[in-house]
Amino acid sequence: MVGFFDSGAGGLTVLKAVRARLPSLDVVYLGDTARALYGNQHPEAIQRYTREAAAFLVAQGATIIVIACNTASAVAAEVLRAELTMPVFDVSDASVAEALRVSKANRIGVIGTRTTIASKSHENLLRAACPEATIFTQPTPLLAPLVEERAWRYPEAMRILRRYLKPLKERHIDTLILGCTHYPMIAPQIQRIMGKRVKLVSSADAMANKLAQYLADNPNSESSGTGIMKLFATGDTAHFTDTARWWLGESVRVEKAVLN
Amino acid sequence: MVGFFDSGAGGLTVLKAVRARLPSLDVVYLGDTARALYGNQHPEAIQRYTREAAAFLVAQGATIIVIACNTASAVAAEVLRAELTMPVFDVSDASVAEALRVSKANRIGVIGTRTTIASKSHENLLRAACPEATIFTQPTPLLAPLVEERAWRYPEAMRILRRYLKPLKERHIDTLILGCTHYPMIAPQIQRIMGKRVKLVSSADAMANKLAQYLADNPNSESSGTGIMKLFATGDTAHFTDTARWWLGESVRVEKAVLN
Repeated sequence: MVGFFDSGAGGLTVLKAVRARLPSLDVVYLGDTARALYGNQHPEAIQRYTREAAAFLVAQGATIIVIACNTASAVAAEVLRAELTMPVFDVSDASVAEALRVSKANRIGVIGTRTTIASKSHENLLRAACPEATIFTQPTPLLAPLVEERAWRYPEAMRILRRYLKPLKERHIDTLILGCTHYPMIAPQIQRIMGKRVKLVSSADAMANKLAQYLADNPNSESSGTGIMKLFATGDTAHFTDTARWWLGESVRVEKAVLN
Repeated sequence: MVGFFDSGAGGLTVLKAVRARLPSLDVVYLGDTARALYGNQHPEAIQRYTREAAAFLVAQGATIIVIACNTASAVAAEVLRAELTMPVFDVSDASVAEALRVSKANRIGVIGTRTTIASKSHENLLRAACPEATIFTQPTPLLAPLVEERAWRYPEAMRILRRYLKPLKERHIDTLILGCTHYPMIAPQIQRIMGKRVKLVSSADAMANKLAQYLADNPNSESSGTGIMKLFATGDTAHFTDTARWWLGESVRVEKAVLN
């Protein structure tokens, strides 16, 4: 069983990509919606939430933890790795590895929320792994609310997107990291604006690749799955059920989680 | 000293209107930014946060509490009133009283976040006070992010606003409650779309009126002020200082608050 954790629904894009790639994997997802958003919270608080979430997922049977939340990846992934003996994967790390794998010119753009971009988490990981990379970052704070509100039928949403991406297009990046788990929902729109020659790296696909690779290298770890999926939320489950149905594109049942 | 409390910066519109109306009033403001947003949190958690915020404001010298947050107004105002002997005013209650005062046809619209509209807090208060009122509600979830991102220079933001307000315009409301503390920042744009005949009720002006009335009726309560303003945030103070400067239109200093 692989345990996924996000502050809300965003990580469902990661879950969806992993299930598409590894359909027989058993998965459990926890959305800590009662305490979302994490963006403004103290690092210590986020570390505590992440620890509680991991303990919940382990109690559900998880033997691998996926931090499917960029904020928690930035401030709590290392802490969790130091405390747990099981593998802990996080979306920022997976995205950066994927970007460096696919980029040819090493001109890499990163978009994300204000908090993620200000944290320089992708930037620091990129520089550490590839000092010669040229990195361009752009906060795109309205994209997550626009995705959550399913506002892509509005032409004005596309205009906002075009406005955000213009500086990155002008810098001739060859790879763009979608540094927020919401963005895979609008990857086709982003691709259309950036052009076919720019490779998009979504944390969802990057994590699916990473997990597939890990499971290929460790064939006994999670080979007995039957595609079970369990979803939990700490906040309102009715709203989360509706959201998860839309994000995953399938009918789901969400249970209430109590963390401690 | 009057103590103001909000989960974030939104309540600064209330503080600003009160200071414009009552310049010699001493005020203290607490933005619980470390735990924002409240929208998805459990009512019990919000009641606890509100209680902690009120205790902090009282320790700072507040003798009147203003809940400048629609979510906390909906779930915690009555609880706080039952526990404290001092006056506790809340923005939802003030807005509803003001709307019923200014409306002639009693055709009243309410806009707000999804959480506020779903809570029916304004609707229930309106129906209790005026059973014959006709009420139209409209969630406008993208407006708060657009205000926070100062996106009003984008023409597409106006298009989103027009789209949201169209159903209310078609219902020929004569009064519109701005049911989110962020919205006074875009009151001119809303007024332009709704037309001059629709009266806008902002929680900011409604609270300024309510406080002015209370202080006129209780002349000794807060008559000795000299316009002192103290601002506190539980989260990052640098970001909040920047936000507060923009929202209040004046240079400010923000101190870190620790609640318990």
